[in-house]
Amino acid sequence: MSSAQRKTAIRISRAEDFPAWFQEVVKEAEMAEPSGVRGCMVIRPWGYGVWEQIQKRFDQRIRETGHQNCYFPIFIPLDLIEKEAAHVEGFAKEMAVVTHHRLVQKDGKLVPDGQLEVPLVVRPTSETVIGEAFARWIRSYRDLPLKINQWANVVRWEMRPRVFLRTSEFLWQEGHTAHATREEAMDETATMLEVYREVVEDWLAVPVIPGEKPESERFPGAVETHCIEAMMQDGKALQAGTSHFLGQNFSRAANIQFQTKDGGLEFAYTTSWGVSTRLIGALIMTHSDDDGLRLPPAVAPAQIVILPIIRDEASEAQVMPAVEALAKRLSGERYLDLPVRVEVDRRDMNAGEKRWSWIKRGVPVILEVGPRDVASGSVAVTERTALDQKKAILPQDELVSGMSDRLAAIQKRLYDEAAAFRETRIRTDITDYEAFRAFFSKEGSDFTGGLGFVRAPWCGTRESEAKLDDLGVTIRCLPYDQGDVAGKACVLTGAPATVEAIFAKSY
Amino acid sequence: MSSAQRKTAIRISRAEDFPAWFQEVVKEAEMAEPSGVRGCMVIRPWGYGVWEQIQKRFDQRIRETGHQNCYFPIFIPLDLIEKEAAHVEGFAKEMAVVTHHRLVQKDGKLVPDGQLEVPLVVRPTSETVIGEAFARWIRSYRDLPLKINQWANVVRWEMRPRVFLRTSEFLWQEGHTAHATREEAMDETATMLEVYREVVEDWLAVPVIPGEKPESERFPGAVETHCIEAMMQDGKALQAGTSHFLGQNFSRAANIQFQTKDGGLEFAYTTSWGVSTRLIGALIMTHSDDDGLRLPPAVAPAQIVILPIIRDEASEAQVMPAVEALAKRLSGERYLDLPVRVEVDRRDMNAGEKRWSWIKRGVPVILEVGPRDVASGSVAVTERTALDQKKAILPQDELVSGMSDRLAAIQKRLYDEAAAFRETRIRTDITDYEAFRAFFSKEGSDFTGGLGFVRAPWCGTRESEAKLDDLGVTIRCLPYDQGDVAGKACVLTGAPATVEAIFAKSY
Repeated sequence: MSSAQRKTAIRISRAEDFPAWFQEVVKEAEMAEPSGVRGCMVIRPWGYGVWEQIQKRFDQRIRETGHQNCYFPIFIPLDLIEKEAAHVEGFAKEMAVVTHHRLVQKDGKLVPDGQLEVPLVVRPTSETVIGEAFARWIRSYRDLPLKINQWANVVRWEMRPRVFLRTSEFLWQEGHTAHATREEAMDETATMLEVYREVVEDWLAVPVIPGEKPESERFPGAVETHCIEAMMQDGKALQAGTSHFLGQNFSRAANIQFQTKDGGLEFAYTTSWGVSTRLIGALIMTHSDDDGLRLPPAVAPAQIVILPIIRDEASEAQVMPAVEALAKRLSGERYLDLPVRVEVDRRDMNAGEKRWSWIKRGVPVILEVGPRDVASGSVAVTERTALDQKKAILPQDELVSGMSDRLAAIQKRLYDEAAAFRETRIRTDITDYEAFRAFFSKEGSDFTGGLGFVRAPWCGTRESEAKLDDLGVTIRCLPYDQGDVAGKACVLTGAPATVEAIFAKSY
Repeated sequence: MSSAQRKTAIRISRAEDFPAWFQEVVKEAEMAEPSGVRGCMVIRPWGYGVWEQIQKRFDQRIRETGHQNCYFPIFIPLDLIEKEAAHVEGFAKEMAVVTHHRLVQKDGKLVPDGQLEVPLVVRPTSETVIGEAFARWIRSYRDLPLKINQWANVVRWEMRPRVFLRTSEFLWQEGHTAHATREEAMDETATMLEVYREVVEDWLAVPVIPGEKPESERFPGAVETHCIEAMMQDGKALQAGTSHFLGQNFSRAANIQFQTKDGGLEFAYTTSWGVSTRLIGALIMTHSDDDGLRLPPAVAPAQIVILPIIRDEASEAQVMPAVEALAKRLSGERYLDLPVRVEVDRRDMNAGEKRWSWIKRGVPVILEVGPRDVASGSVAVTERTALDQKKAILPQDELVSGMSDRLAAIQKRLYDEAAAFRETRIRTDITDYEAFRAFFSKEGSDFTGGLGFVRAPWCGTRESEAKLDDLGVTIRCLPYDQGDVAGKACVLTGAPATVEAIFAKSY
């Protein structure tokens, strides 16, 4: 049965309505759901499990590159966040503000009481509060570099929230470092962007374009913002991680000064960099299909689920011990230098429904074991990336010994598919504004409509970007792998180009 | 040189001023510090590293007992938290309230703007918001039990903050479960308290007394609160973990109903349980001495530090490769089924100062390697728990192969010392209110003064507890290992006793 013929598991297809499909995939996979709190989501165990896997890998790489974890307060006093002008300007419109520290009964109603002298902002990011600590900790060049990281929740008030993509509260990691020289801080900025690229490509199987943001898209207060940009299946861009070179802006604001080797006094150079639960949105919109989520094995909370096929008590007595033994054998195997993650689904429910629940959750490998399989020592194997193929029946030994390679092959397949898709959606043949405008204005500009990135020469001026505004397009980045623009015209203005840029609609 | 003679590393001794000593230990160990935000602390890498070790062990045990991690919103709308009357009553006085969602410039000043229709409370705990999700997720007995956990920050406004002990924001784990029967929920409450006891005693090496709280000390909204109580070196109690049986209180408030097997409709029975960064306070006040922190190996971020003794470039070339090789060998050893955690201190600073910095940080084992040690294949070993003994000089092979046993012995020594101390400070001979009052009223009731716990028969009435108020004493718990109180008189009132209780001043 080909996928064109059979009914797919997600009520709304990508072609019908991409945003509605995304919400359905999240819901059906039991990843997350909106909460009673506007703009805030509940991350359910399967979704949180993915985050834990992503976290674990980033955390490892962040440590390996010489950073230490710590934790800073969630609240930032108003007078502190005001210190860096561009920074507060950038975040003022989306800040949750704490103004009172207790509730009291008044006329039978509970009302805020105990007004704070200085209101507190719930951190949208922690440059200011960490800068204050850095100023206490850094005295001399011997204290540098100072390289720290924190895993935390942050709040940026969202008027149009979308689960995993734009939520008022989200989880993230924010790294903050201080260095004695500009060069060292710029190296750090580059190193961490490369860590992001590596983890997002190798573990999330999401291909990205690394590059620098144009001035208009910089982090508020940064001198340079570098990023990795991914393409979703509707052709839109999603910023999957950013690394900022902050120069001396925040060290001047927070007075982070150090004694140099020759006795002088200088402001430190700082950086910051972060990835968030938005990555889960990127993962979903990159890999999922009309049957639901497809998870790369590297970040799947369970890489394998075993479904016992049981008809009665007799078959249960026969099947369950075999299933438990198989689970144990598989857990003894390793993939990416970690034990393979296996789950046995013991739920008491209809077998077909159970199987589809795992397909929608995107578990990479589904194994089914019934009485006949126990007798013959075999297992029925379904890969989530090959649903329309017939189930393979394999001897247990072969299945177990081949599992690591199988997971690696699935991981590679997901990356390759995403890379191939992206390849077809990057236009490099659009050279003038008419064609550019037509490309980004066409109807049905989503999954089926062929929307994507335009890679084209750009003149590098802020004024030229005005021509993007009514198209809802932005410059995503100036990719590191620059083509030669000598003698070429800017796709927006026709003026001489200075740089190649990636243009796209985005999340 | 005995400890009585030499100068100790912490400026203020326990005997001089216990609370001030505590602050100094935290500061000198670089565990944490007050931030510019009133009541909020910055947890520095060494302190956060301890938290990560504690977290890792709890997380493992929480999973092994069948719970799944997820994440719920930090904000709770006022109308939601109002639903459980006792609950809101218990927390109203210490809630941070968000009333606005942006800042605007007004007369050159940044002020809160965009007032929320319903103010949001920053979670002091998540029963209400999780209850709302449970009501959505639970339909039938097949959905039960539902057992989840989250690692999160919570806020309870503190007027008199103390680092790690009482901070407005703290980090914790909160478990929440729903069950079909009262018995199952009570079993869960007991299981998780036992997990807490086990981890706190076996990993933090802090002996505790498990028991039930009297009504007056229950969690707001709970039917029963169970706890583990530890004794600090000043004889005060510290509640190290709580597990609550919530009955149907929260399921009625949130309408968590389920269809029973025979088609009826019933409210679920719920539980909640938590441990927090307060545990780090307990760890410090249990084990530290006048030279600073002493960490149990099970939760030390580094169990061993190697200090290279270098005088010039020649000795550096000789010593460093040997040090790196030794670190590698030691990392290959295992303790508590995990790789041994070794750090090499490469900082360019005075050797004595460096050594003392690790003593104050409480690293369990300090190794020193100089050119002569390299030549002879030996190492100088100092255990933090045996500072006043001469350094042992050991052959490397012996050191490495014995490391796991050495760490286990240090772990045991710390537990045994704490248990022995507690033994001397639990009074069971106080039988009337006069003696009770005298015991808790005496001067210098701290480290030297012999303050501690009174274990005595109690009549079980709330009225009797009024006699505790002006003494600043509370009933810490009704210990599970009850003595026989038949025919005995209540230590407070002289009325017939019904139960044995632990009385103490507390953090």
